[in-house]
Amino acid sequence: MSDVILLAHGSGGLLSQELVETIFLPHLGHPDGPLEDAAEIALAPGRVVMTTDGYVVRPLTFPGGDIGTLAVCGTVNDLAMRGARPLYLTAGFILEEGFPLAELDRLVASMARAAADAGVRVVAGDTKVVERGAADGLFITTAGVGVVPEGVRISAAGARPGDVVLLSGSVGDHGLAILAQREGLGFGPAEPGPSPLQSDCAPLHGLVAAMLAAGGASIHALRDPTRGGLATALNELAHASDVTMTIDEAAVPIHDAVRAACDLLGLDPLYAANEGKLIAIAAPEAAEATLAAMRAHPLGAEAAAIGRVHAGREVGRVVVRTPLGTHRLLDALTGEQLPRIC
Amino acid sequence: MSDVILLAHGSGGLLSQELVETIFLPHLGHPDGPLEDAAEIALAPGRVVMTTDGYVVRPLTFPGGDIGTLAVCGTVNDLAMRGARPLYLTAGFILEEGFPLAELDRLVASMARAAADAGVRVVAGDTKVVERGAADGLFITTAGVGVVPEGVRISAAGARPGDVVLLSGSVGDHGLAILAQREGLGFGPAEPGPSPLQSDCAPLHGLVAAMLAAGGASIHALRDPTRGGLATALNELAHASDVTMTIDEAAVPIHDAVRAACDLLGLDPLYAANEGKLIAIAAPEAAEATLAAMRAHPLGAEAAAIGRVHAGREVGRVVVRTPLGTHRLLDALTGEQLPRIC
Repeated sequence: MSDVILLAHGSGGLLSQELVETIFLPHLGHPDGPLEDAAEIALAPGRVVMTTDGYVVRPLTFPGGDIGTLAVCGTVNDLAMRGARPLYLTAGFILEEGFPLAELDRLVASMARAAADAGVRVVAGDTKVVERGAADGLFITTAGVGVVPEGVRISAAGARPGDVVLLSGSVGDHGLAILAQREGLGFGPAEPGPSPLQSDCAPLHGLVAAMLAAGGASIHALRDPTRGGLATALNELAHASDVTMTIDEAAVPIHDAVRAACDLLGLDPLYAANEGKLIAIAAPEAAEATLAAMRAHPLGAEAAAIGRVHAGREVGRVVVRTPLGTHRLLDALTGEQLPRIC
Repeated sequence: MSDVILLAHGSGGLLSQELVETIFLPHLGHPDGPLEDAAEIALAPGRVVMTTDGYVVRPLTFPGGDIGTLAVCGTVNDLAMRGARPLYLTAGFILEEGFPLAELDRLVASMARAAADAGVRVVAGDTKVVERGAADGLFITTAGVGVVPEGVRISAAGARPGDVVLLSGSVGDHGLAILAQREGLGFGPAEPGPSPLQSDCAPLHGLVAAMLAAGGASIHALRDPTRGGLATALNELAHASDVTMTIDEAAVPIHDAVRAACDLLGLDPLYAANEGKLIAIAAPEAAEATLAAMRAHPLGAEAAAIGRVHAGREVGRVVVRTPLGTHRLLDALTGEQLPRIC
């Protein structure tokens, strides 16, 4: 038996079946019945939402996570940003010939742990193999389905003038952890120990449920600031809702290690990627209770109110008040800050 | 404006947005509201099924189809093989830096046509870009959701002794069309004109609906013989149902051009891939009516009864009676007949 992926593992024949039986099913769980072309799923009452994301992150494993955790958390979070309870995922794997089976096994195990943490089941999968040089190791594309509870109406278009902009924690952790790992940059501690730059990769549906319990229908919009960072996500929300926002830069939590690395590299942490943070737009009367609920949740301990929503549009969608008291326009990301961040 | 994919098209910033607005939304349709992290879908009553498949076919365009039609039809067909009405797809694109935007536009247009033909909506998408050499042009992963009508219970484990094995048409067309195109083999006609080797890529849900109208609950199992071909799909069905099958090789429709190409290349058409064919296992009393319904449908005009299901297991799962009257064991595909066939 080979210890690396062969083209025949993607043939649909016996080696494909062996891969399913030795790696995918042991980690992701056997279905109750036979392996079908499509899996049956049971949905609770409520509005159903569906999403997909591809994952091409490099390196495959980084401080705080790997492509397996990312492929589960990223799609779970897209569902959670509609206020949904994530329920089912599918996973499509594209593998390069020669990829080590032991590494695949480790990454699928990691995916299974993330799915268990997030309370979702991976109900269908597919594996394709391409020849050496036609892909870079492993790409994963997940799709997800979730159910939005009765009464929850969250939309990127929901922000209204007067609303408060809440942020669940520090920004830039994922982006800088990947960058430091990839480039071998020495941002680690002088003494041996884990790097202070750790990805924040985490499933956010539990935090969202706690926020909805506190803020209810007063939570108007949610978005997770992934690629393009906080700046791009705020611009998307402001654009979709046809409002403007003012953000107080000093209120945005940024870990010291991230700030130091950004200073050194000339990067703006407001554009760096996050994989376990969310922006919430809440009505002013519910902002305090929502913020308290966020801070009471392990994934929102550093949550902060960072700005306000306003009507009209004068110079731009999002304006930042800097710690020096000056103002600058915060546009969506132009160009590419860091390829293959997720 | 660039005419090829740049890394920044995968940044999540302004160029990503431009790609969505100039290519994806014009073809695949604007949502009713803003672009959300997850799309709301409306499901008819019934059991819900979900599936995914990745597409890495090479070349991207081939006689009878392209990766866009394939990425829609393949996932639609996996849903149809449960007897479901396919309703919603998601599409994740992994693009190589430098990929021509005009080609992407053409392939997404083709995807949109296939989705319209199949009556499904592509409700969510994602684009990632990797650097030159880290992927081979374009990979697409689709996921799909469909609803199984009341009373329909189709499963790979449904075949019972005495059942009839039906096949919706000729085998090997997709596999040989790809092979001929890829290798530049001269199987074309002496006179100019389309190659006689054309992929059979097509959505099968309409054929399945016509069969269910005729055969109802007497249709026990369905499978589309894609990678690994007819032989592998029959073995999967026999294994999942714990039965054996005898197949009459002379009854299996094979187009002359496919047979000639297989003879020349030493390939067995029973292992060649199909993208618009299905195997149905039906109770004997309903087999004739089901076959008649298949033949009345444009995608089943060449349908045939090709074998029977039996109890027990002696030497193997699937036995073929050859045109010479001898018998041979038909195993699932071992090794790799042709990489990147879908």
